[in-house]
Amino acid sequence: MNVASPNATTVGWNDLDLAAVATAKALAADAVEKVGNGHPGTAISLAPAAYLLFQNVMRHDPADPHWLGRDRFVLSAGHSSLTQYIQLYLGGWGLELEDLESLRTWGSKTPGHPEYKHTDGIEITTGPLGTGLASAVGMAMAARRERGLLDPQAPAGESPFDHMVYVIAGDGCLQEGISSEASSLAGTQDLGNLVVIWDDNHITIEGHTSIAFTEDVLARYEAYGWHTQSVDWTHGGTEYREDVDALAAALAAAKSETGKPSIIRLRTIMAWPSPTKQDTHGAHGSKLGAEEVAGLKSALGLDPQASFAVAEEVLAHTRALGERGGAARAEWDIRYQAWREANPERAALLDRLVARELPADLAQALPTFEAGTSLATRAASGKVLAALADPLPELWGGSADLAGSNNTTMAGEPSFLPVERSSAEFAGDPYGRTLHFGIREHAMGAILNGIALHGLTRPYGGTFLTFSDFMRGAVRLSAIMGVDVTYVWTHDSIGVGEDGPTHQPIEHLAALRAMPGLAVVRPADATETAAAWLATLVKGGPTGLILSRQNLPVFPRGEQGFAEEAVARGAYVLQEASTGTPEVILVGTGSEVQLAVAARETLEAEGVPTRVVSAPCLEWFAAQEEDYRSAVLPGDVRARVAVEAGVPLSWHGIVGDAGRIVGIDHYGASADAATLFREFGITAQAVVAAARESL
Amino acid sequence: MNVASPNATTVGWNDLDLAAVATAKALAADAVEKVGNGHPGTAISLAPAAYLLFQNVMRHDPADPHWLGRDRFVLSAGHSSLTQYIQLYLGGWGLELEDLESLRTWGSKTPGHPEYKHTDGIEITTGPLGTGLASAVGMAMAARRERGLLDPQAPAGESPFDHMVYVIAGDGCLQEGISSEASSLAGTQDLGNLVVIWDDNHITIEGHTSIAFTEDVLARYEAYGWHTQSVDWTHGGTEYREDVDALAAALAAAKSETGKPSIIRLRTIMAWPSPTKQDTHGAHGSKLGAEEVAGLKSALGLDPQASFAVAEEVLAHTRALGERGGAARAEWDIRYQAWREANPERAALLDRLVARELPADLAQALPTFEAGTSLATRAASGKVLAALADPLPELWGGSADLAGSNNTTMAGEPSFLPVERSSAEFAGDPYGRTLHFGIREHAMGAILNGIALHGLTRPYGGTFLTFSDFMRGAVRLSAIMGVDVTYVWTHDSIGVGEDGPTHQPIEHLAALRAMPGLAVVRPADATETAAAWLATLVKGGPTGLILSRQNLPVFPRGEQGFAEEAVARGAYVLQEASTGTPEVILVGTGSEVQLAVAARETLEAEGVPTRVVSAPCLEWFAAQEEDYRSAVLPGDVRARVAVEAGVPLSWHGIVGDAGRIVGIDHYGASADAATLFREFGITAQAVVAAARESL
Repeated sequence: MNVASPNATTVGWNDLDLAAVATAKALAADAVEKVGNGHPGTAISLAPAAYLLFQNVMRHDPADPHWLGRDRFVLSAGHSSLTQYIQLYLGGWGLELEDLESLRTWGSKTPGHPEYKHTDGIEITTGPLGTGLASAVGMAMAARRERGLLDPQAPAGESPFDHMVYVIAGDGCLQEGISSEASSLAGTQDLGNLVVIWDDNHITIEGHTSIAFTEDVLARYEAYGWHTQSVDWTHGGTEYREDVDALAAALAAAKSETGKPSIIRLRTIMAWPSPTKQDTHGAHGSKLGAEEVAGLKSALGLDPQASFAVAEEVLAHTRALGERGGAARAEWDIRYQAWREANPERAALLDRLVARELPADLAQALPTFEAGTSLATRAASGKVLAALADPLPELWGGSADLAGSNNTTMAGEPSFLPVERSSAEFAGDPYGRTLHFGIREHAMGAILNGIALHGLTRPYGGTFLTFSDFMRGAVRLSAIMGVDVTYVWTHDSIGVGEDGPTHQPIEHLAALRAMPGLAVVRPADATETAAAWLATLVKGGPTGLILSRQNLPVFPRGEQGFAEEAVARGAYVLQEASTGTPEVILVGTGSEVQLAVAARETLEAEGVPTRVVSAPCLEWFAAQEEDYRSAVLPGDVRARVAVEAGVPLSWHGIVGDAGRIVGIDHYGASADAATLFREFGITAQAVVAAARESL
Repeated sequence: MNVASPNATTVGWNDLDLAAVATAKALAADAVEKVGNGHPGTAISLAPAAYLLFQNVMRHDPADPHWLGRDRFVLSAGHSSLTQYIQLYLGGWGLELEDLESLRTWGSKTPGHPEYKHTDGIEITTGPLGTGLASAVGMAMAARRERGLLDPQAPAGESPFDHMVYVIAGDGCLQEGISSEASSLAGTQDLGNLVVIWDDNHITIEGHTSIAFTEDVLARYEAYGWHTQSVDWTHGGTEYREDVDALAAALAAAKSETGKPSIIRLRTIMAWPSPTKQDTHGAHGSKLGAEEVAGLKSALGLDPQASFAVAEEVLAHTRALGERGGAARAEWDIRYQAWREANPERAALLDRLVARELPADLAQALPTFEAGTSLATRAASGKVLAALADPLPELWGGSADLAGSNNTTMAGEPSFLPVERSSAEFAGDPYGRTLHFGIREHAMGAILNGIALHGLTRPYGGTFLTFSDFMRGAVRLSAIMGVDVTYVWTHDSIGVGEDGPTHQPIEHLAALRAMPGLAVVRPADATETAAAWLATLVKGGPTGLILSRQNLPVFPRGEQGFAEEAVARGAYVLQEASTGTPEVILVGTGSEVQLAVAARETLEAEGVPTRVVSAPCLEWFAAQEEDYRSAVLPGDVRARVAVEAGVPLSWHGIVGDAGRIVGIDHYGASADAATLFREFGITAQAVVAAARESL
């Protein structure tokens, strides 16, 4: 080798380990070179750190990527996917050389950014910077909650459910506000099971970080209450030597600090030892070029002409991780079986959670609501959560500082919080159930994702619907990954009232419905709210419950001309036309269904047979069979009116050319809700008038 | 008074000042009590601080809220709008008692949160927490840039364009990631003209901040490079005494620190001296109740039974601010006139900027593009910016670390950056033009808003379209306020290619179009890109330019059957049917217009007269007169196909019942762009097939 090899004597690396790390660097360069694009630089410079983590530090078993006892790894710097793919290849998770050779190509197991459910060993989809770190905070929280559900009495570190969450984050991750939010909360939560390696390479896409990132990151993390360490592979700029031993020692110290999350600043030179492109943003997001790749290989003591060259003995050595992982797994299994035997009820719960099954009689646990009473759907949701608290221990959540407004607290459940953080209002318990995210919507979304990804529990989180904008990046990742996260978005229209336009959602329903894979559910009354929760839990996947601030009448069900609710079908005939053959169909969601009901009365009195359709979830409705859909919205009834206190965008495709939409296409105002509905023309009279136009 | 009055001897408060502050507290309680809802607590406890700022510290003139030389005030804790309204009333900005009495009611000047353009003296709409602080960073940056344009040689503090930006922020503001992003950047930018007062009252909506906010905020701000101070009105918990003198001294020290932004921790007790609700979240967002209000007034030495009681002599005293402001204004006018005489060219520029006029011949400055060449619209945008650099000095901007990808750098212009932050790639100049936001999209949006609000320049900022999700909260505020901010969102579809689903926008076009007041402009080629920039500048208001990563053919214009571009009309007939009477209309945007053009060729060859409509901006099209719109999309041509590489949601209303939409309603994948368009069926053939179905 022409450059100094890593200093890794204490950790016991032999020549095969050193060769494997050099090989990892070459593979990163080769893979990008072959496809012609990608991010080689960080994958090259982080290879020793990733190898250390995967081969020496983390407890995991390549043969079972879903092993409950595994440490979790989150590559928050997702563009450096090769950092992880190459370790999954070397360690034996199922990736082979041809997978690295097909990096970033159609159908490959090695897409540009790591994708959950796509590649074995990938715990989370990353790429949008900062989101991985924030979700790792959620994983670390979930680990504690799951331990609390399953093995609360075990001494620290001795439960089969104790494990670590490791993160590799880049400068970009630490610039994004989502990581600031989550890191502050991680400090409050004393997450001793979380370790972040910050790749401090001074390079982002615009070049040196001096132009935009001059803060003292470790001082900031100390301010958050983190344990901080620094490992400098430039040795003060004197020489570049990959001091793996120092990193290993820092990781060990981080692990033994069980009362605080840890961050390790790892000063690296991007793409080292690439001869001319190291330490430049030219190595960040482009192929290095054949000459540079050859130079890199020469510097590493490898054959500069050989591509994707992996010595058999090197691979055999790295794949011995399978034996070590299997042994760790076997040791763990003994403890796990002992736990099962000692805790049969908890083991049964675990089995149900692993299978992601719900209790059989869950529907019976739901509250019912008396027709003719009046209740905000957010309040109904709160009653549902209270009712689910006992039968569904895996359900937990909270709010971004709006618990009382979002009705997201299960009464009597302690807060998930170190005891010493308790307040007069909220008693803390490290295994508690109520989450306090603070005023940090974006981190809340990512943390919910992390909790869901961790595997056993089902999280929810609330804020005002208008602030779904602040968390959209995280919601999109929920939808891309298809995780079981429930967003409780209350204060769902100008019904918010006096707080005015900044707090009144107008476009949010349409904007959220635009997002593939997210179910947007806006129940019309308390009864639909309970059914919406049940359907959400049964169907799984990311769901947004859109709930009213203001009281809404509870409709009769199965009598007085009202059908039983059928929320799970997305839309259904709430009231049939008196003749059984509608001339006009009124479709509404949420608080506006009552307007459709009132308008129907007027229209029927005028002799117009009128059907009312409640459409709480257009995505669930679209997933129904054509027969059902055309039974609800028959093609020959072209006179249709949609009514929803939001932009009309969602409804053109449903009401069609002859239809009309009663909505609002401008921002709200500060006044009481009744005034706003009246002044902005979202009324039963407006629905009647629109129906007349449509007929 | 039953409680100790503020310690304000050094600042020279007399009995009338003390009475005014007590009155301000009572008014806050009265206003919320009358309407029955709102946020009294912080307005009560911050009254002395706000009074100090408005009466003693800030340079402003109630008679001219738009005075160029004024200090700016940003109430980042917007829910405490009474904090500002009451000072605007006392100081004489035009608010009167009846305005406070009509707080949060329909049509009043005193909406729930401060609204820009709605109430004189309100510089910015706030409410979503953290956004005000982040926009204040933009204001402070704009102040420096404007000085650089108008008066760069003046010694520090001696230019008529030198002034301060003051912020009041709450705990929520500092929890939100957007403030972390902006504050880190403010440190990098050495914004000595920015002073933040953090109201450290330990209370948010969920109660005590111990449950979610335990970090050391000042240490964090030190890590960002800020100047930090602490003023404790609880005096270590021993007694509550509003030490106005200490706050005044801290504000003076903050102002004299010209090399760093400043934050002052002001430890307060919310709602002090409200007898039973002080220091509780019960005083945060609800009326206090009659008894508590009376108790508060008694504690303040006021008549407990009198509501909205303001002594004449108190108001006369506080409105003397008008004379002091007028005097400051007169002193400033002398310096300003001297500057005008010494700088006639710059004065002419200033007059143009104040009038928000564009140079008359701006269109001539735009580049033209040769038909038949091929160019990404992001690259065309870069050429437009280069061409606008000289004629439009007010135009400036940058990127959230994607300058090279977004093509947002005007070649040869220095970076807006302290010289010592320069990098090999970017030379810094404190008056520079290229902005480096770092990987902080949300703060970028808020900073752009702040720059635009500051009044003289026109900012733009770029990132990938997919990350518009990260900044939606700020974009919505651009739209609510109607400010002249241009978002440059590139990499606008699966055309992104190999980076995969996290980086490929699918739903973003529809989601952004859902937002009232935002123009979403997706040009079809380089020619349309230049026209889009021009129309954006002419029309003003918040605009998103949606630009391709991949090359797109430049269409001929005014020949070969192609019309001249008419981007400013939003949509126009690019190619007429050969017969002049279309049987089918193909509507496309951006990179898909070329597919419509190719499909037309096939359809015409099959004998189907086919019109192609390029529709770069549906919002601008909707604003055209009905005659124009029906000329482009005649009502009798029902066979229509929309083609856009995004979710179909935007298009149902345009293509109608008989129409078809070629789009994509699921997430993308990691592969080259051509493969993705083919595999996902966004092709000319698909458009042809859809047209046949529609006919």
